[in-house]
Amino acid sequence: MIIVPEAAIGDLITPAQAFDAVEKVFASMSRRSAYNFPVIREAIGHADALYGFKSGFDRDSLALGLKSGGYWPGNADKGLTNHQSTVFLFDADTGKCRAIVGGNLLTALRTAAASAVSIKHLAPKGAKVLGMIGAGHQSAFQMRAAVDQRDFDRVIGWNYHPEMLSRLADTAAELGLPFEQASLEQIGAEADVIISITSSTAPILMDAHVKGGTHIACMGTDTKGKQEVDAALVARAMRFTDEIAQSISIGECQHAISAGLITEADIGELGNVINGDDPGRQTDDEVTLFDGTGVGLQDLAVAASVVEFAMENGVALDVDF
Amino acid sequence: MIIVPEAAIGDLITPAQAFDAVEKVFASMSRRSAYNFPVIREAIGHADALYGFKSGFDRDSLALGLKSGGYWPGNADKGLTNHQSTVFLFDADTGKCRAIVGGNLLTALRTAAASAVSIKHLAPKGAKVLGMIGAGHQSAFQMRAAVDQRDFDRVIGWNYHPEMLSRLADTAAELGLPFEQASLEQIGAEADVIISITSSTAPILMDAHVKGGTHIACMGTDTKGKQEVDAALVARAMRFTDEIAQSISIGECQHAISAGLITEADIGELGNVINGDDPGRQTDDEVTLFDGTGVGLQDLAVAASVVEFAMENGVALDVDF
Repeated sequence: MIIVPEAAIGDLITPAQAFDAVEKVFASMSRRSAYNFPVIREAIGHADALYGFKSGFDRDSLALGLKSGGYWPGNADKGLTNHQSTVFLFDADTGKCRAIVGGNLLTALRTAAASAVSIKHLAPKGAKVLGMIGAGHQSAFQMRAAVDQRDFDRVIGWNYHPEMLSRLADTAAELGLPFEQASLEQIGAEADVIISITSSTAPILMDAHVKGGTHIACMGTDTKGKQEVDAALVARAMRFTDEIAQSISIGECQHAISAGLITEADIGELGNVINGDDPGRQTDDEVTLFDGTGVGLQDLAVAASVVEFAMENGVALDVDF
Repeated sequence: MIIVPEAAIGDLITPAQAFDAVEKVFASMSRRSAYNFPVIREAIGHADALYGFKSGFDRDSLALGLKSGGYWPGNADKGLTNHQSTVFLFDADTGKCRAIVGGNLLTALRTAAASAVSIKHLAPKGAKVLGMIGAGHQSAFQMRAAVDQRDFDRVIGWNYHPEMLSRLADTAAELGLPFEQASLEQIGAEADVIISITSSTAPILMDAHVKGGTHIACMGTDTKGKQEVDAALVARAMRFTDEIAQSISIGECQHAISAGLITEADIGELGNVINGDDPGRQTDDEVTLFDGTGVGLQDLAVAASVVEFAMENGVALDVDF
């Protein structure tokens, strides 16, 4: 059994490698070669924790297993990350546990990779301005993964607490891009690509804000009741998601669905665009929207890559199990 | 992170210690201190495998996590056990993965412990004859755990393939008890305690076979469609189970329920008997029946014991994770 500890992950996988793994598994999902199992998520009644599993199987790559962990709000006081997760990979030919991989950094990388994959396949080719909504821990990962996909010449950003915008400024500087604080109106008017990554429960970006010719990646909504953008904006856009079942129930599309503005049939799969089975964006004037809900297969895909790289680099700890 | 490989388990936990762990967690479940999360079970469309998770949390012991694995019918040809599983324990205070424990032998021990716990609390005090239905791999574990609970003076057994009865004879000999092959009629007429552990999909032991004053532990039915005993026998008995939700859907009680012979309210929890909140057996003439469906909390309980013993004995492999 291969063990790859959390601390080893950073040296083993790049954002570009995470991108490849996630793009492949989205494609496999839309070919129906890969599917996610039902999600388990439980408030366990101890330490205010949410605990659960995301799991699945990809017949193409033979990635089988789960990510388990959750949210422990008291961890920060102990010097630990509040989100804790571990990925367990199983041998699809025997059912034996094959690998244990630290899941914290991988979760950040796979979430960032998902919006980057959506930008590659849905954003206007000539996109120049990247708009960021949200400046939490995950925002830096989203920005780093995004800038490889278009020839951006600047980043503009908004956050509910403006004092946190230094994270976006620092990340843009690291990437060699100018950064400017912006209002939501400015972001909607100027950005060609917008990534929202917040834990908001009310719409932040409104339909009237957005000029058109924009690609929006909504990455923060993964629970019933969360919401980042106006349902009318979702209704106006061409909508794509990682998994339709999650999009309509816990993703950004839940609100446009429950308001009766769209139906399930109005949401496309990003994997179909990757596979060439859905044309995706038709003109430069449209608004495209990616509802990134986060699926277990993303976790398995990046963890399987990490295990491969760890073995190639001789840093995998192999224990007799 | 503590690792206890499959090969180490046999030296770390006795049937009696597995009994204690399972008795405690059944009690905790009935006090509503412990609960199982929904079970995931998927035919993955590869290697004819069934793969999934059983999971839960016990607030009393702080055991949190899951057992994952399944059934790989092609394993035997590779020299591996068809049933493969691994238990993952999480720290309930931080969400970090705390231990990985081989789950194959533990599954056998916890299943055997469950019927033994039911015998302790439900069988007639003066039980002398143990009847075994089924002679597969698991039957030996059930017999070994059972004999500690009453002063049995002989074992009688039946199996669909009589040539396999040597397993029961050998196990009884190991335990110092005489063994005799018996018809189902004989088992029903003579045995004071009957354990059925088969993968049958039609009733084997019929209502007319059973004399009364008998405790029956039905341990084989854990899936929709499986059945070991006559629904009329279930209806006649005082019924107890590990978890009512599983008993009525995938356990032995599913058939008496769907035939309209009993309702959910007619099934008691073994944990309530352990806790003294349900009197259980009232007289020596009754038939009691335990529907052992198998819950994730049993796996967590025995795995947590194993981790404790491994640490006490200095044989736990502790890896930096």
